[in-house]
Amino acid sequence: MALTFNTMKNRDLNKIDLSYPLFQGTQKIYVPGKIFRDLRVPFRQIVYGNGKHLNLYDTSGPFTDPDIQLTISKGLPPIRKTWTAQGTGDASSCKVSRKKQIKKKKCYTQLHYAKRKVITPEMEFVAIRESCTPQLVRQEIAAGRAFLPANINHPESEPMIIGQKFLTKVNANIGNSAVSSDIVSEIEKMIWAVRWGADTVMDLSTGPDIHETREWIIRNSPVPIGTVPIYQALEKVGGVAEELTWDIFRDTLIEQAEQGVDYVTIHSGIRLKNVPLAAGRLAGIVSRGGAALSRWCTKHQKENFLYTHFSDICDILAMYDVGISLGDGLRPGSIADANDRAQFAELKVLGELVKRAWRSEVQAIIEGPGHVPMHLIKANVDKEKRLCHQAPFYTLGPLTTDIAPGYDHITSAIGAAMIGWYGAAMLCYVTPKEHLGLPNRNDVKDGLIAYKIAAHAADLAKGHPTARHWDDALSWARYHFCWDDHFRLSLDPQRAKSFHDETLPEKHSKKDHFCSMCGPKFCSMKMTHDIFEIKK
Amino acid sequence: MALTFNTMKNRDLNKIDLSYPLFQGTQKIYVPGKIFRDLRVPFRQIVYGNGKHLNLYDTSGPFTDPDIQLTISKGLPPIRKTWTAQGTGDASSCKVSRKKQIKKKKCYTQLHYAKRKVITPEMEFVAIRESCTPQLVRQEIAAGRAFLPANINHPESEPMIIGQKFLTKVNANIGNSAVSSDIVSEIEKMIWAVRWGADTVMDLSTGPDIHETREWIIRNSPVPIGTVPIYQALEKVGGVAEELTWDIFRDTLIEQAEQGVDYVTIHSGIRLKNVPLAAGRLAGIVSRGGAALSRWCTKHQKENFLYTHFSDICDILAMYDVGISLGDGLRPGSIADANDRAQFAELKVLGELVKRAWRSEVQAIIEGPGHVPMHLIKANVDKEKRLCHQAPFYTLGPLTTDIAPGYDHITSAIGAAMIGWYGAAMLCYVTPKEHLGLPNRNDVKDGLIAYKIAAHAADLAKGHPTARHWDDALSWARYHFCWDDHFRLSLDPQRAKSFHDETLPEKHSKKDHFCSMCGPKFCSMKMTHDIFEIKK
Repeated sequence: MALTFNTMKNRDLNKIDLSYPLFQGTQKIYVPGKIFRDLRVPFRQIVYGNGKHLNLYDTSGPFTDPDIQLTISKGLPPIRKTWTAQGTGDASSCKVSRKKQIKKKKCYTQLHYAKRKVITPEMEFVAIRESCTPQLVRQEIAAGRAFLPANINHPESEPMIIGQKFLTKVNANIGNSAVSSDIVSEIEKMIWAVRWGADTVMDLSTGPDIHETREWIIRNSPVPIGTVPIYQALEKVGGVAEELTWDIFRDTLIEQAEQGVDYVTIHSGIRLKNVPLAAGRLAGIVSRGGAALSRWCTKHQKENFLYTHFSDICDILAMYDVGISLGDGLRPGSIADANDRAQFAELKVLGELVKRAWRSEVQAIIEGPGHVPMHLIKANVDKEKRLCHQAPFYTLGPLTTDIAPGYDHITSAIGAAMIGWYGAAMLCYVTPKEHLGLPNRNDVKDGLIAYKIAAHAADLAKGHPTARHWDDALSWARYHFCWDDHFRLSLDPQRAKSFHDETLPEKHSKKDHFCSMCGPKFCSMKMTHDIFEIKK
Repeated sequence: MALTFNTMKNRDLNKIDLSYPLFQGTQKIYVPGKIFRDLRVPFRQIVYGNGKHLNLYDTSGPFTDPDIQLTISKGLPPIRKTWTAQGTGDASSCKVSRKKQIKKKKCYTQLHYAKRKVITPEMEFVAIRESCTPQLVRQEIAAGRAFLPANINHPESEPMIIGQKFLTKVNANIGNSAVSSDIVSEIEKMIWAVRWGADTVMDLSTGPDIHETREWIIRNSPVPIGTVPIYQALEKVGGVAEELTWDIFRDTLIEQAEQGVDYVTIHSGIRLKNVPLAAGRLAGIVSRGGAALSRWCTKHQKENFLYTHFSDICDILAMYDVGISLGDGLRPGSIADANDRAQFAELKVLGELVKRAWRSEVQAIIEGPGHVPMHLIKANVDKEKRLCHQAPFYTLGPLTTDIAPGYDHITSAIGAAMIGWYGAAMLCYVTPKEHLGLPNRNDVKDGLIAYKIAAHAADLAKGHPTARHWDDALSWARYHFCWDDHFRLSLDPQRAKSFHDETLPEKHSKKDHFCSMCGPKFCSMKMTHDIFEIKK
């Protein structure tokens, strides 16, 4: 079945760049499953230093596999289709055909299986990616401390897990707005995002063509896709928040779940009584969904319908194993508003809701701020863990200062690294364009690089058992003047090499025991080699 | 007296760009002294929101003052010349003519005056810059907790202070190497650095023309200049560390102090017995000075001459009020080597030396790492405070991961922000070019922006009383859709505006109550205005 564009206006589909060659000395490898032998878990393998190798977690999907021929209009190979047909693993008490479940309109979620001690193919897949046991994955999901987003209708995605005990994850927001971008640009951004390490992608489109944009993205995405369904619901009522109804929202939610959205942000935490708490703020309400629902509550003087219909929402999500990301509609949007009453009143509501989601066997994560100065960051994690029963925390930044629009990937990477260390499980990136405009492809890359740094720094600090291998490999190459290894072990090999080329472009320079920073006589590492008489 | 170039090879002096116009709506103002009425303390004043204004600390010197005509070959106006002739303030017991002191070859340092309860013009100047009392400045200098670098032979500089109780400072490293750059480029980098907020500049030149490069930089620098004299000494012995002698070093130190260098990094902390502690490291010794002295010690099997001659060094420095920056020659150069025995053995030696410097009335700071994962950063500050008697801590980053060469301004801004919050007083920037080559002008700017963000985030977190004014002003402008104010209040107004222009270039867009990120119907702030019926 081929996808067709109905509303493609601006650009040709064939212009989408699908060639993302890996840097020289790097290859894509696959590790097979042990429980489920047809699993093929991807890694980026870097060979360096005469036979050493480093296997890195790889989010880039088939786009970096030269052996797979891709056509955007066909979508990615639906790798999970065969898994869902094969049963659910080694715990005989629960061996049921998921194909049958789907036919019967009764889907069991990963949380359902985990609670019953069943290891699913998805669980083994992420265990291999994370270099841990499938048992750990299962236990963490069962306890609600981890979240494996995997809509049964998104068979193209490669399973991943979000939880404090695992590698810190990064989400990239894409999506057009009414005044900017088109579908092709958004598909390109998604492919570009997974190339640079996005673990999940949220399609936050708010303009026209929301449904179609999302269809193209889901069918071509190797990572879980998140959305904020209220945006599309708002579009259906012409952007007038007070005209939203439960029926419109419900239909939108079902539409998106059917398409294959893996997790949805829902602002059920906004409550009528809490909205006035934001009145005295310097920057008001900065969540789009939060503002819309606050407006709805205020205009109607009624409780938020996403709160009153929370059980109905969970029933829909459970049908598809769509996870819920409990939105922080009252997150602070300025340093002045950080950790205020409005924010924490909502967090308390989220703590109540996450338990209700779990009772419906819906997986859940909790969204967090926003703009927070460094000394107030840890309290956010501590409160979230306590009030929300250790559900995974998914934060936007936080930005540690308001003064640098144009550089908010940096203001927020500082906060993101810290909150990841303190216990946040996924970091939503912020691009340099934040507050100023819709990000383009370069902004997506810049945001991701900053956040992969933050996530990795967090993994080092929280003592993740495999994190330091990468740092040690790179520092080994650096100390031994293996410039080509130095480049290929870098987060962005092309950039590392091009920076070195700027001052020392000659091929023989890549074997020199110095760089232009110090020159041949002043290289400290070279001097150290002499002191300790080190040989490569 | 005009400077002349002897060795200008590559480019014309006239090509140096001296025009750094301030962003529209911003002006340079001066605040006069109260004790010393001829002081003129510069601020960058931003007028916004119908008559509000924000005065920001301004490091850019006369380059951003349209009323001052500058000629590079003449150097900057020597503003401190008249101060040094006028006596030293309000404590009558110490009223001596500094001009006479200099004639008698007996200079009294800021520490000398501070201990005797004398407020100098330099102290009042920094008190006005920092919005604090001159008494606080004096007390902190007297206690050794703050450092006011002000060589009597650098009258062109505008005094500043480095200490935990004050705004967190940023240093920018410039300087050529044997394989790259020229004098004109380095002057340009210095001017560019102060334009973007460098509080001090270190000239780390290692190539030819070290003396001349430094002369041009000092005569044109409105901020204190730091150096690492061992680099020039090494140049004099052809880069062969073991040929260094105390005599060569002493002559170099006097030469630099005479020129007006405000502070010098000296690696007296390297001791013969500690060098072997670095032998098992992943990345060896990464300080150039540290490696050279370690080599000298090892080859001669003798104690470091910078340690044995420490009292002689202090005597020279006291003559000019040159401050000492006690170098961390054994700082870790990789995550694997952080907080190891070699590093802390040296820190203990620095703690001994700082007391000796103070006894000679030489002001001192302590240099710190380097590469440190987040969870090990705080221990660095705690140990430094304890072992080094609360002398100001001056750190390079630290980089919180090794994996991202090409982006080490970000890997290290994370660590820098945190260590500033924990108590470091000055942050030495790291540019994106670190580990790969000599930074160019763009790299200098990128490094500075990342570090101004880190320093400001640190100031917010440590609760500096004036820090939040800036964030609050910007967030006010953002919330009220005053786009032009939003831009001019930004750390980099041009970039903020150009990012907004990318998607909404029309002039009327600067009055719109939305941007392209969300479009007109989905702007959360606009919705909040409606909810709370806010008027500008």
